[in-house]
Parts: sequence; C-alpha cells; structure tokens
Amino acid sequence: MTIHFDGAGGREYGHLALHTDKYQINMMYAHWKNGTHNRKAVFEAYFRRLPFGNGYAVFAGLERIVDYIRTLKFHEHELAFLREQEERYDEGFIEELRSFRFTGDIHAVMEGTLIFPNEPLVRVEARVFEAQLVETALLNFMNYQTLIATKAARIRRAAERDVLLEFGTRRAQEAEAAVWGARASYIAGFDATSNMRAAMLFGIPAKGTHAHAWVQAHDSEQEAFDRYADALPDDVTLLVDTYDTLISGVPHAIATAHKLAAMGKRMSAIRIDSGDLAYLSKEARRQLDDAGFADVRIVASNDLDESIIAELKLQGARIDTWGVGTQLITAADQPALGGVYKLVAREAVQGEELVPVIKLSGNPEKVSTPGRKDVYRLVNRRTGRAEADYMAFGWENDVRRGERIKLFDPMQTYRQRFMTDYEAVPLLQPIIVGGELKMELPGLAAIRAEHRRQLEMFPPEVLRKVNPQPYPVVLSDAVWEQKKRLIEQFGPQMHE
Amino acid sequence: MTIHFDGAGGREYGHLALHTDKYQINMMYAHWKNGTHNRKAVFEAYFRRLPFGNGYAVFAGLERIVDYIRTLKFHEHELAFLREQEERYDEGFIEELRSFRFTGDIHAVMEGTLIFPNEPLVRVEARVFEAQLVETALLNFMNYQTLIATKAARIRRAAERDVLLEFGTRRAQEAEAAVWGARASYIAGFDATSNMRAAMLFGIPAKGTHAHAWVQAHDSEQEAFDRYADALPDDVTLLVDTYDTLISGVPHAIATAHKLAAMGKRMSAIRIDSGDLAYLSKEARRQLDDAGFADVRIVASNDLDESIIAELKLQGARIDTWGVGTQLITAADQPALGGVYKLVAREAVQGEELVPVIKLSGNPEKVSTPGRKDVYRLVNRRTGRAEADYMAFGWENDVRRGERIKLFDPMQTYRQRFMTDYEAVPLLQPIIVGGELKMELPGLAAIRAEHRRQLEMFPPEVLRKVNPQPYPVVLSDAVWEQKKRLIEQFGPQMHE
Repeated sequence: MTIHFDGAGGREYGHLALHTDKYQINMMYAHWKNGTHNRKAVFEAYFRRLPFGNGYAVFAGLERIVDYIRTLKFHEHELAFLREQEERYDEGFIEELRSFRFTGDIHAVMEGTLIFPNEPLVRVEARVFEAQLVETALLNFMNYQTLIATKAARIRRAAERDVLLEFGTRRAQEAEAAVWGARASYIAGFDATSNMRAAMLFGIPAKGTHAHAWVQAHDSEQEAFDRYADALPDDVTLLVDTYDTLISGVPHAIATAHKLAAMGKRMSAIRIDSGDLAYLSKEARRQLDDAGFADVRIVASNDLDESIIAELKLQGARIDTWGVGTQLITAADQPALGGVYKLVAREAVQGEELVPVIKLSGNPEKVSTPGRKDVYRLVNRRTGRAEADYMAFGWENDVRRGERIKLFDPMQTYRQRFMTDYEAVPLLQPIIVGGELKMELPGLAAIRAEHRRQLEMFPPEVLRKVNPQPYPVVLSDAVWEQKKRLIEQFGPQMHE
Repeated sequence: MTIHFDGAGGREYGHLALHTDKYQINMMYAHWKNGTHNRKAVFEAYFRRLPFGNGYAVFAGLERIVDYIRTLKFHEHELAFLREQEERYDEGFIEELRSFRFTGDIHAVMEGTLIFPNEPLVRVEARVFEAQLVETALLNFMNYQTLIATKAARIRRAAERDVLLEFGTRRAQEAEAAVWGARASYIAGFDATSNMRAAMLFGIPAKGTHAHAWVQAHDSEQEAFDRYADALPDDVTLLVDTYDTLISGVPHAIATAHKLAAMGKRMSAIRIDSGDLAYLSKEARRQLDDAGFADVRIVASNDLDESIIAELKLQGARIDTWGVGTQLITAADQPALGGVYKLVAREAVQGEELVPVIKLSGNPEKVSTPGRKDVYRLVNRRTGRAEADYMAFGWENDVRRGERIKLFDPMQTYRQRFMTDYEAVPLLQPIIVGGELKMELPGLAAIRAEHRRQLEMFPPEVLRKVNPQPYPVVLSDAVWEQKKRLIEQFGPQMHE
C-alpha cells in the first residue's frame, strides 16, 4: 500500500527529525563526544499493561513508523535550530547529523496482530546514535495507534455485526490523531470514517450526512429535509433530532421519504444524536415500519462507547449503525498506552558480540528482560488455537524445530506446562534491514482480514470485554536464566 | 509571532482542506445545489462544561486556527479525491471548491484568556459555504489546545513557584498533539518542553538530560555519569534511578559532582523517575546537602499530575522541578473538551438582515443561545476584579457605555444583581475580517504575560483546584428575551 503523500515523500506529515525529546539529542551528542556512537544497540518496544481491562491489544502504527524511518533526515533549518541550543553542540556533531540516515534493522509485529504485555513489538538494532534518536517518535506512533485499534476492537465486539462509523475528528487530540486514529479504527473493524483526509490518505470509506446547522439554516425542518434529499443523490440519511425526534424529526423524514419514493429515490437512514437512544430508536423504528419504510435504517450517535452500545443492545434498541466519536478517538477511559523502549543488548566494544543489559526497578514488573529476543505464537496444531506467546533468543532452535518446550511464566513461577504439537509462528518480521525496506507492507484490506483471522485463533475467554482470562506470555529457560543472572549481577548494589 | 513553517506557508502541517467531516462537504454541496451557499451565516464556538472540575478554562488554539484559515485551499489531489466519492458531486461544485478561499470574519478570544462555559470563544461570520467547512478543524484545534492549557494551569497552580517541564511526547496522541500540547502548556505557565520540534516551531525553551539507556550503555553507572558530564557542557542533570536511587544513583552522582567541581564545572540537578518520590527526594536532598551540594536541584518525573504534585508537596518532598508527561499531554482524566460550533444567525434571504436561530434539546443546557453575540468581561473599577462575563447583542450600547446593567444568569433565574461601576472589556477581538488577518497575533511571551495578568483578576475561590466557586456568565435582557421567544416559537412542536 502507498500512502498518498502528495508526492512529497512524507512531507505531508512534516519534517520529523526533531519529533524527539531533547535528551535523545543529548545522549547522541554524548556518545559522539565519547566516540561510542557507532556501537550497535538493540532496543525493544513493548507495553506492560493492557488498556481498558481488555484481554489483548491490537498492534498498529507500523506504516507510520516505516514512513518516518525512511524519510528521516535533518534539514538545514533543524540543524540551525540545534546550533542555537544552550548545549553549544560541536560543529562536528552537526555535520554528523547532516549526513544522518537510519541504517539499522527494524523487526516488528504486523499491524492488526493481537498482542500482549511484555513481548517485544518493535525491535530496533542499529548504531546507538540512530536507535536512540528514533525512540520518541516510534513510541508516540505505536502508543497512540495501538491504543485506538484496541479500543476500536472492543467497540467492534460490542456492536456485533452492526455498522460502525468513526466520527471523532472534532474531539481528537489534534489533526494527526484524527487521521491515524481513523486508520487504527478501520484496522480493528470499523466500516468507515467521517474524516475526509483519512479517507483520502488511506482509502477508508467516508460517510457523512448533515448536521443540525443544516436544519437550522432553513425555515422549517421539512424544507431542510426535502432540500437535502433533492440535492444529494440516492440513499440519503436525515438527522431527526434538531427540534424533537419523535414529534417532528421522524414524521418529517417520513414525509421526505414518501416524496423520494415517488421520484424513484430512497431515504436510506435516519440519525438520532441525542436523548434516550433505546426508547427513541424503538419508537422511530415503529413509525418507520408503520409508514412502510422497514428498510430505512437507524443510525445513532452521541458519546457512545462499547459499554453504552452493549447496554443499548441489551435494552432492545433498534439501532443498525453506530457513530462513535470522542470515546474512541481519544480512548477516553485510558488515553495513553504506556509503551516503553528499552535497551536490551549493546556492543561493549564496537564490532564485538552483544552484551545483554538490564534495567532494575523497585517494582518487579518494571524490571526489563535482557537480551535480543524473538517472539513466537504457539498455535496448537490440533485445535488451531493460540495457546501462548513464547520469547526466546535467536540461537534457541528447539522452538523453531517444534520440539517439546516448557511454558514458563515469570509472573507465575509455580505453574509449569509443556507443549509439543504446536506451530511456532514468529511475530517479529524483518521490516527494515540495513536501512532498506525489506518487505512491502500489506494494504489495509489485508491488515483487516488478518486481524479478523487472528481473532478466530483466540478463545472467547481471552476476547471478552470484562475480566478476560490472561493469555500466557512466557520466557524460554535461557531468557529466564539470563534475566536472573543479570538481576543478581546488578541487584547486590541494592542491598549493600 | 511567526511560526517557522519551513517557508512553505503552512505546508509543514500538511494540506488541511479535507481536515473536515464528510457531512460538511455534503452540506456545502446541498447549499450549492440549492443556490443558498452564498447566504451569510454566523456560528459561535463554545463549550458547555468545564473540564477537570476546574473553575475556568484557558483559551488556546487561535494561532493554529488562523494559520489554517489563511492557508485554506483545495489542492488538485483533494479535488480529485472528492470526484471519486459516492455522492458524485457535480463538476460545477468541484470548480467552486477550486477557487475556495475563506473571505469571512473571525472574532476570537485571545490565547491565554480565562474563559467560561457557554460564552462564544470564536465567532465565524461568512458565507455558509465557508463557515460550514471550517467547523471541524476549528473545533479540533480549539478543543485540544484549550484542554491542555487548562490542565497545565491546574498543574502550574499545584506546583506553585517550582519549575515545570513538559515531558509527554511519547505518550501524546500523535505528533501534532505533542507540539501543540507543548505550546498550550507553555501558555499556561510551564517553563520548558522536552519536545525539540515544539521548541523549534514556537521558540519554547527545550530541556533534557539522559535516559536509563545511557546508564545501561556503560559498564557501570559511575562511568555513565562521568562520561555524560564530560561530554556535555556545564550544568548537567543526572538520572539516578536506573539501579537504585539512594544506594547507587545519588552516591555516584555526588562522586561525579566532585570531579566536575574540581574542573570548575557543576552538576545542576539529579532526576528521580520512579519509586516513592517523597521519601527518595528527602533522602537524596540530605545526601546532596551532606556532600556540600545544597545548590544541586532535584527533578522528579513519573506519571505526575496536579493531585500527585500537591500531595508530594504536602508530604514535604524536596522536589524543585517537575517533569510532567502523560497526564498533561493527554489530559488523562478528561481527554476531550466538548466544544461545539452552533449556527446562531443566518440570512434567510441573501443580503438581507440576519435571522437568529436556535437548536433545541431535551436537555435544557444543550439549548443554544440565538443571535450574534459579543462577550464583555465586567471588571469592578474599585477592586480590579472580574465579576461576571456578559453576553449582549452588538446594538446594545448600555454595557459599552458603562451604564447600570442587570446580571441575569439563565441557570439561576431567581438571582438578580446589578452592576454599575465597571469596565466592560470585550473578549471577542476581530482577528480576520473579509478573509484578511486584521491584527498581528501576540507572541508567546505576551500571551504568557497576559495569562498571568488575567489570573490576578480572579478571586482564589474561582481559581482553586477543587470545588471552585462558579464564575457568572450572564445574558443581557435582550439576549434572554430573544432566546425565550425562539424557544416558544420552535418549542410548541414538542408538545403537540
């Protein structure tokens, strides 16, 4: 898939070399001054806790990350700005930045994939000079899009087979959140967006009707409906709650629908944007049915989320299409995914072997897992079900060969399970190798299909909206032994 | 102030003509088809409820809105995209869009101003064809930036005179939220940002030290500190919690500080990013003081917000500088301001007088206030205190002449107050007139100063963080009478 960047190579989204925190620049500078900037470093991006109490998250953001990496360079105005900083960076450093390109490797999970805490989602291997710079942007993109895709997946589940429209632009946190949020929603099963720019950039279907202002802009609601239906081609949707939904809006819409029918056109839906959506939709349904418009659908909007949708469906609301805005586009109940980017291995001497490193913490779940790791999804060959995600080092062949392996959960060390008849599906794919794009990223249709396929691999207990069963993410013996060793090595300082 | 858009006239932020909802395009089309697109319309943008339980909000977003309006045009790829839509827009409409420019008037509150519910913050008067298009972008910009400026003002109040740093980029909802959120925070009293792009675009001071990865990238914490201090010029800040703050981090930082002192340089601060910040900061303070580094400051970060900062200060935490990230940049406890944009008046016949219009709702607070309104801040001449905001029509001269006026609160109709010795400060300024920028927008320094000045005009009861006293926003008699009349005119349909 190609993003339509107006032929300007990523320029539509601005120059992003300085879409980073100052401390990245300062660390790059300190490495450069110390001559350690060309040492290779391995960073892994992951999150520690699932958002919204959900049982899984949906990975998104890769397309944006890849575009960022491929267009990453320092422009003259950015270099000029760096020269003005209080750090008074050496001119040699500025020169180094002038020729900066990303030349390393990036492995990542494919968009739409179901993902879980503490497993690497993006692995960056590069000169520390490069790997450090990209941390902030990479997390920014991954955190937001994964968050919204996950929220959208919850809403998709609540809405069952109903149509879902993304309507959040006016409440999004600025313009880019609106378009990338629309895309993330579409990945996780939304059917369309109201955002025209997202529709243009990504090929998402765009939907929209009219606002209250259209009705207010006419002498009567009936006139407003008739004129709108006249102007637009077939299949119009009319907003019926400007004055009063049942007394004024629906009857006027029905009158318009009769006029359309006489002309061989049709009204496809009404939209209700306020009030008691359960009651109003049932009454509106009855009025429409009584008038012979059983095929006219009902669209609802107004601060919806997965809980309200589930509740309305339980109450028998007759809503066919849900327009979801604020709660989705801002992930209002948890507006940030706490994704982190941790150094897991480094060259202590340039060109020599990688040394695993650890970050300790008073909080055990914040201790990082050292070493460059792969992740495999272990799929039971008999049932086709995913049973655990398994982290192992690259040299560990048993899992790749399908040999019997132990499923060891570091948070539940008393549990031991073994698995034999499985397929080990590698989750991290080589996306960028030596700075070059290694694979053509799938288009949105393929990403959506893969997401749906993945959902079928997990049991309903993992997928349910409330109190889902935790899905196991386990470590190979070798990964666990190394982590223990490094905790011991760096831990004693804590108890002197 | 000029934004450094890389000399590309707004291009840095992309083409935003389609940063809109499809229904705006459809309404524009329907107006064009019906020949009503040149009728003048007056829209007002406002919000109905204060976020975070705060007593006021801080207006922000105008700079972004003005840049959007001034660079607003449809590019060929956008027109080509519109041609592909299922609506099959007439080619004449596409031609109309090709020559589209904003030619109307925009009045707005200045950035940094304290604002309150239900008062117009931006008033757009233009051909309905233009005024309708800009709704989505205008709300998107105003909603996010006002939200973040308001959150930042709360944090500024909790932090008292301490230094505040905006650290949120990696958790921001995409790249633009990071930069405009940094700017909004700076307006409301933050001292610096870690975001380099925001620093470059807006001239905000940029601050940053190093991450845990810097420490992990060396064989020991001591080596990491020494090397960082060597590489950077004077006044370095060292992050002390990679392994253990008090046993390892602070002692190593002190050792580095001694070495720096011997070289005539200094360590300016340590940063603590995890653990019990009250305890750790007090113990770190003691260690630093004992070592003769009473002037070394302590920076804290780790999911801070105004409540945690207030709590830590109550506990006697010895923190001089607060780095605030996720909670600020996403306004985590309420990540959307529900700003709306309502048609308040329109030409029923092109070129003739404006007719006020209303939007009714089952919810009384959602009923719009008809008519093109001005807003005055009534400042008591004796005390210098703001006592109420007053909405009136343009032809009402009594308030402008300083005559005795009645303060009528539509939500508290039993209360009546009169005011005589006041200055009526108009809040809505003419920003764009006839499509042309009418005033040079103030720079960030002036906006910050004005924000501080405004805070002094309000009593502490309005400004306090918890359960503030509501500040009155009142209607002139004429505005209230017209609203009642229109409710009666459109209301009876609801009770037939």
